[in-house]
Amino acid sequence: MPPKPLDYGSINENVKKSQYAVRGELYLRASELQKEGKKIIFTNVGNPHALGQKPLSFPRQVVALCQAPFLLDDPNVGLLFPADAIARAKHYLSLTSGGLGAYSDSRGLPGVRKEVAEFILRRDGYPTDPELIYLTDGASKGVMQILNTIIRGQDDGILPVPQYPLYSATIALLGGTLVPYYLEETANWGLDVNELRQSVEQARFKGITVKAMVIINPGNPTGQCLSEANLREVLQFCYQENLALLGDEVYQTNIYQDERPFISSRKVLMDLGPPISKEVQLISFHSVSKGYYGECGQRGGYFEMTNIPPETVDEIYKVASISLSPNVPAQIFMGVMLHPPQPGDISYDKFVRESTGILESLRRRARLMTDGFNSCRNVVCNFTEGAMYSFPQIRLPPRALEAAKQAAKVPDVFYCLKLLEATGISTVPGSGFGQREGVFHLRTTILPDEEDMPAIMDSFKKFNDEFMEQYEDNRGYSRL
Amino acid sequence: MPPKPLDYGSINENVKKSQYAVRGELYLRASELQKEGKKIIFTNVGNPHALGQKPLSFPRQVVALCQAPFLLDDPNVGLLFPADAIARAKHYLSLTSGGLGAYSDSRGLPGVRKEVAEFILRRDGYPTDPELIYLTDGASKGVMQILNTIIRGQDDGILPVPQYPLYSATIALLGGTLVPYYLEETANWGLDVNELRQSVEQARFKGITVKAMVIINPGNPTGQCLSEANLREVLQFCYQENLALLGDEVYQTNIYQDERPFISSRKVLMDLGPPISKEVQLISFHSVSKGYYGECGQRGGYFEMTNIPPETVDEIYKVASISLSPNVPAQIFMGVMLHPPQPGDISYDKFVRESTGILESLRRRARLMTDGFNSCRNVVCNFTEGAMYSFPQIRLPPRALEAAKQAAKVPDVFYCLKLLEATGISTVPGSGFGQREGVFHLRTTILPDEEDMPAIMDSFKKFNDEFMEQYEDNRGYSRL
Repeated sequence: MPPKPLDYGSINENVKKSQYAVRGELYLRASELQKEGKKIIFTNVGNPHALGQKPLSFPRQVVALCQAPFLLDDPNVGLLFPADAIARAKHYLSLTSGGLGAYSDSRGLPGVRKEVAEFILRRDGYPTDPELIYLTDGASKGVMQILNTIIRGQDDGILPVPQYPLYSATIALLGGTLVPYYLEETANWGLDVNELRQSVEQARFKGITVKAMVIINPGNPTGQCLSEANLREVLQFCYQENLALLGDEVYQTNIYQDERPFISSRKVLMDLGPPISKEVQLISFHSVSKGYYGECGQRGGYFEMTNIPPETVDEIYKVASISLSPNVPAQIFMGVMLHPPQPGDISYDKFVRESTGILESLRRRARLMTDGFNSCRNVVCNFTEGAMYSFPQIRLPPRALEAAKQAAKVPDVFYCLKLLEATGISTVPGSGFGQREGVFHLRTTILPDEEDMPAIMDSFKKFNDEFMEQYEDNRGYSRL
Repeated sequence: MPPKPLDYGSINENVKKSQYAVRGELYLRASELQKEGKKIIFTNVGNPHALGQKPLSFPRQVVALCQAPFLLDDPNVGLLFPADAIARAKHYLSLTSGGLGAYSDSRGLPGVRKEVAEFILRRDGYPTDPELIYLTDGASKGVMQILNTIIRGQDDGILPVPQYPLYSATIALLGGTLVPYYLEETANWGLDVNELRQSVEQARFKGITVKAMVIINPGNPTGQCLSEANLREVLQFCYQENLALLGDEVYQTNIYQDERPFISSRKVLMDLGPPISKEVQLISFHSVSKGYYGECGQRGGYFEMTNIPPETVDEIYKVASISLSPNVPAQIFMGVMLHPPQPGDISYDKFVRESTGILESLRRRARLMTDGFNSCRNVVCNFTEGAMYSFPQIRLPPRALEAAKQAAKVPDVFYCLKLLEATGISTVPGSGFGQREGVFHLRTTILPDEEDMPAIMDSFKKFNDEFMEQYEDNRGYSRL
């Protein structure tokens, strides 16, 4: 019998090459254990509502009313919904042509894209054009579309690492080449332009056309906030090397320190002035899935294009149109997120109470987790300055490396599997994000409920310290 | 200055090659005219709510409650929502882990996938496995994922035509080759297996590996319902030629005649028995965007896999996981759609009234439109047996062809643009779907409001007959 079209041997090789550790071996094993009745703490993915975070009331009220527009004519509607949510729902329905059940323009509702542009102007102090803002089903879909536009084949290199595997997986799927640069762990995951330059030169030497680089700010998995000076260097580097910049800024409201507030790549680019501000091609991404919204399941995002020529913008529009339109309810979440209730509005106080409650708790959890990891044997961890993740380095003793080899596992996968089996804590091994040779990490979200956090960190410490005990030799030697 | 990474000359050639006429030149021109204040009737895309179709109350009530779960604890909730919608909302929330704001499993919520499997069993009389059902952001995203799994490069051909350009556009985007077969217009768009066989043989002669074929049943753009005998032939052909079958069945409840009810490809496959039923690799697609739901903007769909080996299913799961999860609200629409209110339920009568109202009106509109087209000079049109489209053949006189050539337009694009400018009716030229050499069509939806339909058809007839008058020579010659 010849192989059939969808037999494993017949399918697209790029599909097989693509790896996505966030829902990889560890996640699959955790799901199995859960089915068997074990209590699992899913800290593998930044999914706040799955770990008990409550949705903000105001945006949910607005979208619920848009889903049930017949309620707007009901005399009792005021018993269940505040007047400002009702007014907002009417506003957003007026921006649709046919409510939430109609496809929007493939770029998203024009009225919501206008609201995104207003937000960007307020945030950065520079105007932008709604025609250059496309709404998407979550930021991931936007990233995939832009990478598909850029990558022509295996000669096109891209530059993220350590990175969120959305990038590496998509690049593999599209048949592109990953050109890695390493962030500096000892400089709190700062970005060294000399390191960048070396990576690009090495890749070009191998014949790779390096076309773009990615920054994730605040960092995933690394949790750092890039300084303005660092961002300026990156943009100057992109200008000198003729690279497009993809700015993944989905964590822009997740900031847990005051020294380095979030600054957008676009603001820094505009501040640099011509020629750089007119030349560097920048695409910035945002999402309703992160921040204090955490509305992951709604799948809402946008990307904004700077210095992209109109012919290319048209091509991106055309490809977006093949899947007709992003989902409309999440477009409304995006509009509400960027235009929250204002002082004096009925819902203002409640909204502020709910949102600051979430952010302040995240800030405390970031600290609890960093301190917890740093209290463990052979574990060192930078403070989570932003985003939703802690990325401790785990210094595995040689005998643990040996045991991993025996088990035919990558060392950090070996460690994380043992952690999962012992404690139910489901993390992602650092090897899923890229890390320097011989150095090992894991990524965990800082999202478990604040009340549960001390017990989780105790449980981790107990596992880790016993693991180290087991695999360290008598001299207490640990690998650096 | 060297070209920049996102300049038109630098981007992925496959992106440029991909064409999607449903939102192509005609749609863009219509959008411009609308901006200028002209009244446009958007019949280019099957988007019922945009043309005034009201959403069904029950599913919207359920999803609105899921969006605002705090209402479930409100003593006044019963004033705005019926008890069965409240119960259903609680049921669907219990299937999530964290409500609508949490990512689901990348394949969709297990509980909803179970409900899809139950629906398929009821519909076909054969059980299926929820593990082989993946929920998607609309059927389009599922189709794109499956094509991406199949297509390895330009040697892999696929077989739809005349077809919905989602297929041709995606195949171009993925660098595959389109192998066309023609449906028989004079046999009410039936499918001729000899024609199919010839197409495959010709493609193989050119060195193309033909891997899969697509059927759209009921047909888009052609509106036909395939007979059971025809489906059987197609499946036998796939078995003989070692082709996977993609069954696009999103219009399965849009049926406007009684002779040929919808039968799923999967049922016909199972009825055929072994070896065929155990061998042919089938993927079937469904959606919440069509039928009497028409919930296009929600972006909900599923695909079901038959005879696909587990290793390939795992690869498809892995790639789905890169974009984390389909949007959760639309998963709930899918659940409700496949499990409507039952006799005795509070919402049953209203639900039946609303849904049959829509279907009966569509049936009348299908007839109105076919008759309207057939009353026009040089226009012949098969009856819309199912789906949402009318696909009349427009017999353009030689002088019209000449005028199109002068204007550097494909003849049917020329005609449709003139129609748009004269009447505001926004259609899609047949060339966007594929048609035999020298034969021209347009596609329009049957979705305009029933009340408006006579005026629209009058306006079309007036334009068409004047157009023909203008371009026919004195002998009244018209091109066949």
